[in-house]
Amino acid sequence: MLVPNTQTSTLSPNRLAFQIVQEMVIKKELLQVHVHKQAEVTVIDCGVSVQGSWEAGVLFAEICLGGLAQVRIHWADFDGFRWPAVEVVTNHPVLACLASQYAGWPLKSGERIAMGSGPGRAILHKGSLFKKIGYEDYSEIAILCLESEELPSEGVLQKLLRELRCYPQNLYILVAPTSSQVGSLQIAARALETGLSKLMELGYDLDKIDSGWGICPLSPVAADTLKALGRSNDGILYGSTVLYNLRDEDEIIASLVKKIPFCYSHDYERTFEEIYREKGGFYNINPLVFSPAEVWMCNLNSGRSFHAGTLRPDLLRHSFAIV
Amino acid sequence: MLVPNTQTSTLSPNRLAFQIVQEMVIKKELLQVHVHKQAEVTVIDCGVSVQGSWEAGVLFAEICLGGLAQVRIHWADFDGFRWPAVEVVTNHPVLACLASQYAGWPLKSGERIAMGSGPGRAILHKGSLFKKIGYEDYSEIAILCLESEELPSEGVLQKLLRELRCYPQNLYILVAPTSSQVGSLQIAARALETGLSKLMELGYDLDKIDSGWGICPLSPVAADTLKALGRSNDGILYGSTVLYNLRDEDEIIASLVKKIPFCYSHDYERTFEEIYREKGGFYNINPLVFSPAEVWMCNLNSGRSFHAGTLRPDLLRHSFAIV
Amino acid sequence: MLVPNTQTSTLSPNRLAFQIVQEMVIKKELLQVHVHKQAEVTVIDCGVSVQGSWEAGVLFAEICLGGLAQVRIHWADFDGFRWPAVEVVTNHPVLACLASQYAGWPLKSGERIAMGSGPGRAILHKGSLFKKIGYEDYSEIAILCLESEELPSEGVLQKLLRELRCYPQNLYILVAPTSSQVGSLQIAARALETGLSKLMELGYDLDKIDSGWGICPLSPVAADTLKALGRSNDGILYGSTVLYNLRDEDEIIASLVKKIPFCYSHDYERTFEEIYREKGGFYNINPLVFSPAEVWMCNLNSGRSFHAGTLRPDLLRHSFAIV
Repeated sequence: MLVPNTQTSTLSPNRLAFQIVQEMVIKKELLQVHVHKQAEVTVIDCGVSVQGSWEAGVLFAEICLGGLAQVRIHWADFDGFRWPAVEVVTNHPVLACLASQYAGWPLKSGERIAMGSGPGRAILHKGSLFKKIGYEDYSEIAILCLESEELPSEGVLQKLLRELRCYPQNLYILVAPTSSQVGSLQIAARALETGLSKLMELGYDLDKIDSGWGICPLSPVAADTLKALGRSNDGILYGSTVLYNLRDEDEIIASLVKKIPFCYSHDYERTFEEIYREKGGFYNINPLVFSPAEVWMCNLNSGRSFHAGTLRPDLLRHSFAIV
Repeated sequence: MLVPNTQTSTLSPNRLAFQIVQEMVIKKELLQVHVHKQAEVTVIDCGVSVQGSWEAGVLFAEICLGGLAQVRIHWADFDGFRWPAVEVVTNHPVLACLASQYAGWPLKSGERIAMGSGPGRAILHKGSLFKKIGYEDYSEIAILCLESEELPSEGVLQKLLRELRCYPQNLYILVAPTSSQVGSLQIAARALETGLSKLMELGYDLDKIDSGWGICPLSPVAADTLKALGRSNDGILYGSTVLYNLRDEDEIIASLVKKIPFCYSHDYERTFEEIYREKGGFYNINPLVFSPAEVWMCNLNSGRSFHAGTLRPDLLRHSFAIV
Repeated sequence: MLVPNTQTSTLSPNRLAFQIVQEMVIKKELLQVHVHKQAEVTVIDCGVSVQGSWEAGVLFAEICLGGLAQVRIHWADFDGFRWPAVEVVTNHPVLACLASQYAGWPLKSGERIAMGSGPGRAILHKGSLFKKIGYEDYSEIAILCLESEELPSEGVLQKLLRELRCYPQNLYILVAPTSSQVGSLQIAARALETGLSKLMELGYDLDKIDSGWGICPLSPVAADTLKALGRSNDGILYGSTVLYNLRDEDEIIASLVKKIPFCYSHDYERTFEEIYREKGGFYNINPLVFSPAEVWMCNLNSGRSFHAGTLRPDLLRHSFAIV
C-alpha cells in the first residue's frame, strides 16, 4: 500500500526554499544579485538593476519550485541543435510545479502586471487550483518570485503582506525580468509545470501523477520583454521534453498523451509572440496553448510508456534569432 | 612511481557511505523513503511500502558504491533515442564496484531471494572475489543494500548481524524492489560494475584498471519483478557505454576489448527476460552474459584507446515497452 | 543601469578558491592526490607521484578558475562522437578565465618550464593582461596551479614566495602533469578561456563580455607530455563549443564571431603537435592559433545570436589515438 504524495505531506515549500534563499544571500556577489530591504521586506533583485547570472537562475528556479525539485543546466542536443538546456527533476510534481511554481498570481502595479509565483502561493492557496490539489503550507516565512521589469512598489508589498498575513521581516521577494539571464532560465524550468497545468486544464486527476522530469532549451536573453516572453515560451512549445510517471489505465493514457504536446494545437508552427499579440496579453491566451513539445507518460501500473510530440529545432533557431 | 589503488587504501566504503545514509535519513520525506527500526537495526525502505524517488535512487546507488563514486542523472542521447541516463564516475573502480556494489550476496527469505550488495560486503569479504581483490573494510558501521520486494525478515536480520558481526544499532539496511524507481536507477548504475565483473570472469588482473566511467539508460519502472529485472538488464546490455582507464600492453587490450560487449555473445539480440526464463533464475545465468553494450579501454601506458560494441536503441525501445 | 563586472568587484579568486583547496585536502585519499609541505608551503600533488582522478581534475579546474566558475563532467555527443565532456559556466569570465586561469606565468626550473596559472596570478598582476583588465586580488592566501611533470624545486618555491610576497604557510601549490587525468581535465576546462584570450589578442574590449559557457571533450591521457599537450589542445581546436553573452553592435559581432573559431586559421586541419613541433615550443606559437572549434555570441543588446565554426569528430578521433 503506497503512501499518497499530497495528503500526508508535511513538507513546507517555503521552509525548504528558504535554505536556498539563504544560499543566494550569502553568494550574492558571486551570483550577481542584489539584496536589499524595502519596508523591512527582503528583496532579492536578480536582474532589474544587476546582471544576475545562470547560477542565480538555477537557484531562482529551485526556490520557485519550493525546494521540491532539482534544477540543473548542461549542453544538450535538441534533434541536431546543440544548445544549453535546463533540467527539472521532481518526485513532488504537484506541490513543486502547481502549488509553488505556477505563475498564477498576477500582481498589478500601475499599468504593469508582475507574474507572481513560488512557494508563497501555497500559503495564499487561493483559487480553483488549490481546491483541486487540496494543499496549503503553514509557514511563518513566505517567499514569492516575481517576473517583472521593476522592483515591487510599496503598494504591491503591502498587498503581499496583507494577503500572505506575514511579518515584513519574514517575507522574501525575488525579482527577475523576463528579459534577463535569470528570467530565461526560470521560464525554461517551467516545461514540466506546463505539461501538468495542461493536464489539469484537461480535467485530469493529478493525484495519479507520481513524478516528473523535464528538459528544455535555455532561450537566449532577448532585447525586450515581449520578445523574451515569446522566445522563452517557444523554447517550451518547440524544444521541451517532459516525462511523467503515473498510475492509470493504458487506454486512458494512450488517448491522453496525444492531447498534451503543442503539435496537436491549432496554433502549431506559430510563434508564441504571434499568439500573444493576437490575444493582447498573457492571461487572455487559451490555457491549452501552453504545452511542452514532446511528452512521455510512463505507466507505473502496466510498465508501458507512451509518447507524443516532436522537437522543432528549425523553429527554435528562428525564435532564438540565430543569425 | 605510482601508488597502487587497493593495497595501501585506508578508505572505508562503510564509513564513506554512512554520510550519504545520514543525508537520506534527514531528507526522508523529500526523498519519499521510510526509515524505521527492526530489532534495533535501521531499515530504510526505498520502495516497498513507499514510492521512493529518483533522487533516493541516486543516493542508494552512491551508498551501494561505498561512497567511492559519483552518480548523476540527466537526459542523454542513445544513438537517436533521447532518454534519461545514469552516469557513474569512479577512480576506485574495484573497491566501489566489486568490493561494494556487486550483488554477490543472495539472501534467502522463505522461497524468495533478496540480492545483497553495498559496502557491508567489504566487511564480510567472503568468497573468491575478495581473495582476488585482497581487500576488507574494518568498520563498526555496516551498510547493506537489498534488492527485494519485501522488508528483511527477522531471520535475514539475525543472519546479517551474525555474519557482519556488528551491533544492531550499527547496521543500516536499504531495501528497494527491482520494480521501483530506486530499483531501476540503482541497476542502471551497475553498467560499470558489469564490465568489471566480466573482466574478472575472464581472468583479467583488475589491478590494471585505474578508473571507470559509465553511462546507462534508466529503464522505466516495470509492472512486476521479472519484467523489471529484464528491462533494467536490457538497459545495460543494449544501452550502456563504459570507459576504463587501464595500464597494459596494446595487443592485450585490442584483443580483450572485443570480449566485453554483449554484441559478441551467443545470446545477443535476445531479451534478458528470455535468457532468465530459459535458465530459470538469476544465479543460473552464465556470468559472461552480463555485459555492457559498448566499451572503451584507454591505455594509460600507450595513450591509445580501444573500442568495441554498439548501442541498440531499437531493442531498448522494445524492452522498455514503448508504445 | 547595470553594475559592471570588474570594477566594483570585491570577489577574491584566492579566497574563493581556498574553500575548494580545503575540500581537496580533506578528500585527498578519495581524490588520489597527495598533500605535503615543502619549505612550509603546502603542495598538492595531483598527478606527479600519484594517479589523481577525474574528480580531482574538476576541483583543480575550479580552483584554477578562482572559484568563479562551475565545472562539471558528463558524457556528451560531439557530432556523432559520444565522449566524456567538461563544461565550464561562469558569469565572471574575465576574472575567472583571464585574471586566474590563463596559463600566463612560465616558471623555469632547470631546462623545464612549468606553466603557472590560477588565482595567484591575480595577486601578481604582472604584464599587459592585468593592465587591460585593471584588476588585482588583495589576499593573504595565494594559490597557484602548475602544469608540470615534477614537483616545484626549491628555486621555484622561493621565486613564487618572493613574487607573490606571501608567507610560506599561506601559499598553496597544485601540480598536475599535462599527461595525467587531472592534466587532461584542467586543459579541457580552458576552452572558454581560449576564446577570451583570442578576443583579447584581437584587441576586443573584454568589458563587453558578460558571461560564458563552454563544453569540450576530455582528451584521454597520453603517453608523454608532448602527445598530451597535442591532443588536449586538439580537443579545444576541434571539439569545443563556447558561448558568450555580450553587449555590442550586431554588425561588429557578426564580423567578430568569424575571427574566433579555428576553422578560419591557416593551421586548420593540422594537429596541435605538428604546429608545436614546427614552432619549437608552446610560447613560440602565434597566440591566434589557440581557438575554440565553435563559437556562439549572444548579443544582450539586440537579442540576436551569432555562430561560427564547426566540430571535427574525425580529427578528434585521430588525435585521441582511437584504434
